[in-house]
Amino acid sequence: MVTRKEVAELANVSEATVSRVFNGLGPMKPATKERVLEAANALGYHPNAIAQSFARRRSGNLGVVLPYMPKVHLFSTYYFSEILSGIGEQVREMGYDLLLSLLTPDDELDYGRLYRSQKVDACIILGSMDTPSQRQSLLHLQENGHPFCLVNQRFEGLDFLEVDADHVEGSYQAVRHLIDEGNRQIAFLNGSPQYSNSRDRWLGYQRAMLEAGLPINSELLLEGNYSRKSGYEAAAKLWEMRGRVDAVFAANDRMAIGVMQGLRERGWMAGREFAVIGCDDSDAAKLSDPPLSSIAVPFFEMGKGASRLVLASVGQGVSEEGQVQLSTQLRIRQSSIKRQY
Amino acid sequence: MVTRKEVAELANVSEATVSRVFNGLGPMKPATKERVLEAANALGYHPNAIAQSFARRRSGNLGVVLPYMPKVHLFSTYYFSEILSGIGEQVREMGYDLLLSLLTPDDELDYGRLYRSQKVDACIILGSMDTPSQRQSLLHLQENGHPFCLVNQRFEGLDFLEVDADHVEGSYQAVRHLIDEGNRQIAFLNGSPQYSNSRDRWLGYQRAMLEAGLPINSELLLEGNYSRKSGYEAAAKLWEMRGRVDAVFAANDRMAIGVMQGLRERGWMAGREFAVIGCDDSDAAKLSDPPLSSIAVPFFEMGKGASRLVLASVGQGVSEEGQVQLSTQLRIRQSSIKRQY
Repeated sequence: MVTRKEVAELANVSEATVSRVFNGLGPMKPATKERVLEAANALGYHPNAIAQSFARRRSGNLGVVLPYMPKVHLFSTYYFSEILSGIGEQVREMGYDLLLSLLTPDDELDYGRLYRSQKVDACIILGSMDTPSQRQSLLHLQENGHPFCLVNQRFEGLDFLEVDADHVEGSYQAVRHLIDEGNRQIAFLNGSPQYSNSRDRWLGYQRAMLEAGLPINSELLLEGNYSRKSGYEAAAKLWEMRGRVDAVFAANDRMAIGVMQGLRERGWMAGREFAVIGCDDSDAAKLSDPPLSSIAVPFFEMGKGASRLVLASVGQGVSEEGQVQLSTQLRIRQSSIKRQY
Repeated sequence: MVTRKEVAELANVSEATVSRVFNGLGPMKPATKERVLEAANALGYHPNAIAQSFARRRSGNLGVVLPYMPKVHLFSTYYFSEILSGIGEQVREMGYDLLLSLLTPDDELDYGRLYRSQKVDACIILGSMDTPSQRQSLLHLQENGHPFCLVNQRFEGLDFLEVDADHVEGSYQAVRHLIDEGNRQIAFLNGSPQYSNSRDRWLGYQRAMLEAGLPINSELLLEGNYSRKSGYEAAAKLWEMRGRVDAVFAANDRMAIGVMQGLRERGWMAGREFAVIGCDDSDAAKLSDPPLSSIAVPFFEMGKGASRLVLASVGQGVSEEGQVQLSTQLRIRQSSIKRQY
């Protein structure tokens, strides 16, 4: 049987490059790809051979890498639990087990460990941030032909498998709704810019404000960490600016609820003295008092889609569309409609 | 090196029995255990040899088996997500990865698959029911020396590792509270009796009613499936019995919230026309309108404890306390206090 090594030698590339060609993964010069395919053709080396070799060392596990977040009951957060439910649904259908790996704070992002120890055939990486070390770790995985997919996070300029939501449009709709309701001084409580979805929300916010001819006031741009507590703390700042702020757009429901709680303690009620809209459309949004307007993000479907995408790439030698983006939806409830009171 | 087989022959027992003695697992006659230990001693066979053999084939994974529940976003249910968060916290501390296996509807409960394929060193089994086939599957695991632990489920008469909560006392407290608030006709919306926690709640309900000299009216005993919908459906039955019911104790918060919603549509408000108390003390209990009284169950700690217990038993040859029971706590909110309105 012709080996990957022989193809690599004839094409004058590394074995990893041969794998990448047949896995359909990774950025690659068209000329390189062509050279590899020609060499494979000349030697009679077929993607099926790769597929079989993959099959032989398949673990039957899809890995999910989760960030460690001190004090957070990770599976109890709407965001992760919905993505995981979607992943779970898909792997169950495909007969895979799910290997969860929780990164500890001092882990050096050695994702390769899971593949090298043959614990997983592919990985979904959640909660990754756009940092130099993260980029390096992911590029390293890609160079080694290890299939992985990101959810709700993009790395500009890199060609990874990614399943994302249209956060630009979602945020635009949220802010546009606040403006349509007569608000002019709209605060924006965002998450860290190391998440692509934070950067997307910032674009949507700007677009809606500028389109309506409203100035962007840097005093109204706040940053939290997606916890209820950080929303609660932002409420103190918003209270200091009372008279100069009439609405808040928060990057998730937890922060939005924290804002509502903090302002309520000072006598301001969402849907009465000010308008609030969140993101995620979690269960908490429907149950909060008043019910919270929010942007629904299809996390469940994103988890399903990422699993399907990355498992399809395992040993197939064919690459599906690598970047997928799903739509969000505006859900209006009492917290953003002042006239209802 | 002395083998397990030689010890088994000398002691006149099966090899599985030898394993069970050194794993500290399984029900066993004291005389049998003594005979095995004597044989091991005579031959110079030490638990360490077992430990080393385990160490050699360790996967570094703790398995978690989850039930198949159609249409349910499993990780988004408070119950499973909290237990999983606790398991996740513990395995992270111990350097293990977590292998989640989702049962499919036609699975024959072959838990052994995970051990035989060396995917896991030990398992936590969630959502198991007390059925003959389940008992058989678990006994089979135990006979093969595969360490596992159950959470929130007991199998009477069998000696498995189990981490449970005191649902008898919790339910007693809940019903006692409703009685103290002046309610006499207390409906009980329980789950399936194939869960030991359902049977425990039934004991607690009876104890509180009988202690207060109240009759148990079979008309007021309802069964749901832990979904909000089944609580909503129970509301229709309760409405039919209006005048003969003044309070409801539901076996989880979701069903309690469904009951509140269903009765509210008919004009009855929890905390006004009737009293409601749930179980779990989930986030939803705090956020529902009115806030729901509930029994707090330490699911997070139960997940942590089960992981610690079962991983301590892997290749150790020592057995910790096999059955653990944690306390519950009554949390009173507006839904069960009629006079607040």
